[in-house]
Amino acid sequence: MSVLKKVKEARQAALKMANLPLEVRNGALEKAAREIENQKDAILEANRSDLRRAERLVKLGKMTKALYNRLVLTEKKIRSIAESMRSVASLPDPLNRTVYSCRLDEGLDLYKVTCPIGVIGAIFEARPDVLPQISSLCLKSGNAVVLKGGREAVNSNRILYEIIRESTEAAGVPRGWIQLIEARREVREMLKLDEYIDLLVPRGSKQFITYIQQNTRIPVLGHAEGICHIYVDSEADLEKAVNICFDAKVQYPAVCNAVEKILVHSGIAPRFLPLLAQKLQEAGVEIRGCPRTRRIIEAKAAKASDWKAEYLDLIVAVKIVDSLEEAIDHINTYGSKHTDAIVTENARNAILFLERVDSSSVMWNASTRFSDGYRYGLGAEVGISTGKVHARGPVGLEGLTTTKFYLVGKGQVVSDYIEGRKKFKHERLKAEWRDFRREVLGS
Amino acid sequence: MSVLKKVKEARQAALKMANLPLEVRNGALEKAAREIENQKDAILEANRSDLRRAERLVKLGKMTKALYNRLVLTEKKIRSIAESMRSVASLPDPLNRTVYSCRLDEGLDLYKVTCPIGVIGAIFEARPDVLPQISSLCLKSGNAVVLKGGREAVNSNRILYEIIRESTEAAGVPRGWIQLIEARREVREMLKLDEYIDLLVPRGSKQFITYIQQNTRIPVLGHAEGICHIYVDSEADLEKAVNICFDAKVQYPAVCNAVEKILVHSGIAPRFLPLLAQKLQEAGVEIRGCPRTRRIIEAKAAKASDWKAEYLDLIVAVKIVDSLEEAIDHINTYGSKHTDAIVTENARNAILFLERVDSSSVMWNASTRFSDGYRYGLGAEVGISTGKVHARGPVGLEGLTTTKFYLVGKGQVVSDYIEGRKKFKHERLKAEWRDFRREVLGS
Repeated sequence: MSVLKKVKEARQAALKMANLPLEVRNGALEKAAREIENQKDAILEANRSDLRRAERLVKLGKMTKALYNRLVLTEKKIRSIAESMRSVASLPDPLNRTVYSCRLDEGLDLYKVTCPIGVIGAIFEARPDVLPQISSLCLKSGNAVVLKGGREAVNSNRILYEIIRESTEAAGVPRGWIQLIEARREVREMLKLDEYIDLLVPRGSKQFITYIQQNTRIPVLGHAEGICHIYVDSEADLEKAVNICFDAKVQYPAVCNAVEKILVHSGIAPRFLPLLAQKLQEAGVEIRGCPRTRRIIEAKAAKASDWKAEYLDLIVAVKIVDSLEEAIDHINTYGSKHTDAIVTENARNAILFLERVDSSSVMWNASTRFSDGYRYGLGAEVGISTGKVHARGPVGLEGLTTTKFYLVGKGQVVSDYIEGRKKFKHERLKAEWRDFRREVLGS
Repeated sequence: MSVLKKVKEARQAALKMANLPLEVRNGALEKAAREIENQKDAILEANRSDLRRAERLVKLGKMTKALYNRLVLTEKKIRSIAESMRSVASLPDPLNRTVYSCRLDEGLDLYKVTCPIGVIGAIFEARPDVLPQISSLCLKSGNAVVLKGGREAVNSNRILYEIIRESTEAAGVPRGWIQLIEARREVREMLKLDEYIDLLVPRGSKQFITYIQQNTRIPVLGHAEGICHIYVDSEADLEKAVNICFDAKVQYPAVCNAVEKILVHSGIAPRFLPLLAQKLQEAGVEIRGCPRTRRIIEAKAAKASDWKAEYLDLIVAVKIVDSLEEAIDHINTYGSKHTDAIVTENARNAILFLERVDSSSVMWNASTRFSDGYRYGLGAEVGISTGKVHARGPVGLEGLTTTKFYLVGKGQVVSDYIEGRKKFKHERLKAEWRDFRREVLGS
């Protein structure tokens, strides 16, 4: 089947999915989770054939060992895939929430209600556990989804896709709501289908996401990179500062919310930097310092390119600044608008930093690693957006929804209001569309 | 000054504008309104020079009389421009509203707070009153703005821009927050600056907006067209149906929320269509009907292209359908996802229609002409969006805002939570960032 045909099928299904009751969506998620567990042997077998091919690539030096490891499915991983689908089922319904309601006039009520976006395009690299995760989030939020997984996981992805499609369609989800695209050349075609795909949710490397952002007119939810900063203020508590920097760099350096740059106020640098350097160097972190930093601690010389680099590794660049303003300017110039933190005991400095730094998450005395949908209490994470429209920062299920206005009248016409025979009341209501719906349907 | 330099200046100003107190933003709006009234003679003179050029174009047949009329400023129009700026000042503050707050753990509080988007690009045709309107909305919402007006109004736009810039900067708004671009070739350049411009708000014809959407990677807030439908159900009240169709077509046919297609259930068509035709034809409306319509009333034959046409004129296409489902399918296939209405006394049919039609506004027994920011009680209208991400339907000031996460801790690190020494509480709070800010700053 052609890409266009698959995407059109998804579009047709999407129109029906908008009104799928919560019980059907949750029931389908539970059923798919059960089937994934039931068919674990077949999944492991498919995964083994991906692994055989990957082993050859590793031997030829064409695949890293790290990438290989991420491909591996085990019984335990399969159970955790099923568990995470059940946990999506247990989340509150993101649909049919009334976010605004207003009595325009007697007998003329307006409701603004959350609804699915339509068709989501999910493009991801390698890891086979991404497919069930993104499919679950789309189903829960009433969206159809077109999936394109990494070539390395083609067999694992295909069987997971088939199990999810069959079990959810059997549970009452409209046929065609989930589609799989396998060939790389088909991605190019998919990126052109802005008439049918409403939102792209890519997962993968910076190069991969940048490529997608630059080659489509479909809105993209996501971020290309996380160049996160910690600014250690002149009035920082030294112990907090060291702990936060250490956690943000060392706990998991390969992720987008790990710190890449530490800015230190010159007034505290002579006391702070030796403590920081000792702790970081014990963990094997390479420090790249500005000239003034290197007068205080041993460090490689930072180049101009270091201030814009995302290492995703045990490397950090350190720069001494003379003021809070200089730190803020530096972050707004070199950062990626992802997550930045200040360590200080001075509330005025903290507030200034939080309000002036133009990033999706800004933190006071906390590790940048907290920037995450689960940690933020959003239930599930669709992604972290560094874009400013639609969604910004860690995005929960609400990132896969939009809104729709329902206006309910008794035959009103606009000319009465324009010609002065009637006047708008514009009374804010606390009415719920759900309640109104139940009332008029008498059910 | 080059386009790039202007846009960069706006970007610099935007970083400062995010924290401009409400009093400064409102004071600047009041001051600009006063100055526009004070300098009305100079504005009228600049407008006359635009009109002189326009007159020649009308004589040469290169400008329509309608376009000429929209160019004309009068004392009364200038007063109404000033009034509308004051009314923006009187709207509630769209910034610093806490939309979500959560206690992640004891002493670790998260706030999601509304903030400006950054730099807005406003591109519009002809009408000089658009410039003060969009500038006011941007200033109120703390955004910098880069304006590009129509060539026909170049002198009127320039003087309005200068008055607004001078008076607002004198009132404390950061220098460079408002920029004007005049040459048409500069638009192309502007459309490429996705690194500096966060959102485009175009106003103008369908061709104009489609051109912009197809030539930029900057997100666009707006709609290319309004192909609005009214479906007259088999259980419609005939009088309501005639009144709503008449209002939606005749009251102001040149706007995007006017009805363009009327779908009529075959069971009611023989009684309804003669009433409709009589009323519409008295107002000079041309009816284009499907073959079955033309067996009941006199009408021109509708062509296939009619179902996708936006007339913006006293023309309407009428089609007979055999079911509610056929009507919904037709709308989802040929409509523009703007505004569609059903007229019926059957609640079940109405709810089905509202929930299945995939448009930004759907109405039951009300005229499509109600679809408008002011009428919806949103205070001001930034535009009507037929896109599904960021904003959908009539968009108020909130369409010019985004959100930012503030996380306030006491030195917490993520490793404690990952290694089980601490547990997240995730307690939803009703806390306001504003209150927290006041408390810690002791002011």
